[in-house]
Amino acid sequence: MNDMKAPVVILVRPQLAENIGMCARAMANFGLSEMRLVSPRDGWPQKAQMKKGAFSAAAGATHVLTAAKHFDTLDQAVADLHHVYATTARYREQAKPVEAPAKALADAASRVASGQKVGLMFGPERTGLESDEVMLASSIITFPVNPEYASLNLAQAVLLTGYEWMRASKGDVLPFSMPEESPPAQQGMVSQFFAFFEGELDRVRFFHPEAKKPVMVRNLRNMIHRMSPSEQDIRTLWGALDLLAKGGKQPGSKQKPKPVEDHPVTDA
Amino acid sequence: MNDMKAPVVILVRPQLAENIGMCARAMANFGLSEMRLVSPRDGWPQKAQMKKGAFSAAAGATHVLTAAKHFDTLDQAVADLHHVYATTARYREQAKPVEAPAKALADAASRVASGQKVGLMFGPERTGLESDEVMLASSIITFPVNPEYASLNLAQAVLLTGYEWMRASKGDVLPFSMPEESPPAQQGMVSQFFAFFEGELDRVRFFHPEAKKPVMVRNLRNMIHRMSPSEQDIRTLWGALDLLAKGGKQPGSKQKPKPVEDHPVTDA
Repeated sequence: MNDMKAPVVILVRPQLAENIGMCARAMANFGLSEMRLVSPRDGWPQKAQMKKGAFSAAAGATHVLTAAKHFDTLDQAVADLHHVYATTARYREQAKPVEAPAKALADAASRVASGQKVGLMFGPERTGLESDEVMLASSIITFPVNPEYASLNLAQAVLLTGYEWMRASKGDVLPFSMPEESPPAQQGMVSQFFAFFEGELDRVRFFHPEAKKPVMVRNLRNMIHRMSPSEQDIRTLWGALDLLAKGGKQPGSKQKPKPVEDHPVTDA
Repeated sequence: MNDMKAPVVILVRPQLAENIGMCARAMANFGLSEMRLVSPRDGWPQKAQMKKGAFSAAAGATHVLTAAKHFDTLDQAVADLHHVYATTARYREQAKPVEAPAKALADAASRVASGQKVGLMFGPERTGLESDEVMLASSIITFPVNPEYASLNLAQAVLLTGYEWMRASKGDVLPFSMPEESPPAQQGMVSQFFAFFEGELDRVRFFHPEAKKPVMVRNLRNMIHRMSPSEQDIRTLWGALDLLAKGGKQPGSKQKPKPVEDHPVTDA
C-alpha cells in the first residue's frame, strides 16, 4: 500500500483513443501516473491504430499509457481501492456526498497520506457514468461550472481533478518565481536617491508653488516605494536621472554617465 | 467599466482554429465570455474553413466566438485594460511577480469588483508568449505542474485559469448537491430504533458473553451514527429488521411487514 502515492484514475468505457491520450497527458501534468481502463470501446491495447492515436495525443506522457491496466468490469477495477470518487456533471438520485474538486482532493490527499488507495472514476465521453457505476463510489465530485454551460470533456475533467490533487498534495508549488538578481534596496539607499532626485528637481524649479512641494515630494516618494525597487533599480534610475540633469553626454564625446558604483550605497 | 464583469481572455497569435474553439468552450464553462484574438495565424474570421473548425471545437460556446474581437497588435488588445496577467510555463528574466492561478484570480476578482478591466494573456500553442509580450503584463501566472511534465496546451491553460476565476468570483458553487428527500433522523427516533434493534438481538441471544454486551452495543450504535441516517433510512432498516425478526412473511401470504408509519417517531 505504501507504493501507492497518488490516486488511481479510472476511465470507464472510454470511446476515443485520442481522449485516453489527452487524459494521460493531463495526469502527467499533475503527478498522476496510474491509469485503469474499464472496457474501452475499441479494446486496449489491441488496435495498433488506436494505440497510435492515444500515444500521439498523450504528447509524451507515454509512461502513463504504457503502464495503463485494462479491466473488463468496474468492480474489478476498484476492488483494491479503499475510497472511490465518481465524477459527474449531472445530478444523481443517490444519497452520497457531492463535493467540489478542491474539497474532495484535499480529503483524498489525507487518505493517501494514511496509506489508503484512492480512485477517481470518469465516465465515457458522451454519456458520463451510469447510475450503477456511480453507486460503486463513496462520494461524488462535480465541478463549479457555469450552469448554463456545464459540459466539460473527459480530459478537462481529469485535468481539473489532477490540478486539485497537485494543490492538495504539494500546495501551489510553482516551477519558477520572480528573478532576484539584485536584492531589494535598503531604505537608506532609497532615501539617498530621493535626496539626489529632489535636489535636482529643486534646481530646475520643479516644485512650485513652494507650498505644494511637500505633497509633490510625497507623491514622488510613494511612486518609487510602490515599485519596491531593487538595488539595481535604484542605480539604474539614479544613473538615468543624473545624465538627464547633466544635459546628457556631449555629442561625439566618449564621456560616460557617472558610473552608478560611485553613488553612495549602504551595505547590507 | 461597470459592464465589465469578468476578465478578458487574450489569445496572442493562436495557430489552430480548433484550439481557439476549445478555448471558447473552456471560457464558457467558467463564465468568461470576452475573447480577444491578436493576429491569429490564419486571420479572423476571414478563412471560413478556420472559422468552421473553431465553431465545431467550441462545442456550443458559439456566443464567445461570434463576439470575439480581432486586433492586429497586442498593444491595441490591452489598451483599455487596467491590469493584465501573462500566462507562461517558462521562467522569464522579467522582474514581475509570478503567481499561482488561485492567488492571481483572487486578485483579479477584487480588481473586477472595484470596476477594473482585467486581461488574461495566452501565447501561441508551440512557443508561448514572447518576452516582449510578457513585458506588457503587470504580473505572471504560471501553473503548479509536475516539473518533469510541465507542458499544458492552450485550452488547458485557459480552462485552469477560468476555473480559478469561477472559484474566486463565485466560490465552489456546485450545480447540484446530495438529494435530501428525507430529513436527517432526529436522535429520539434513532434511540427508539436502537431500543427495538437491541431488544430483538437480546431475544436471539446475540449478546454473549453478557460482559461483552456494552462494547457490542457501542459498536453497533457507532455504525448507525456514522451513516448519519435520514428518517427514511431508519424506517427502511426498522422495517427490514422487523421482518427478519418475524421470520418473514408466510409463503403466499399477503401479509405486509408492519407498516413503518406505525413505528414511534418523534415529531419535528
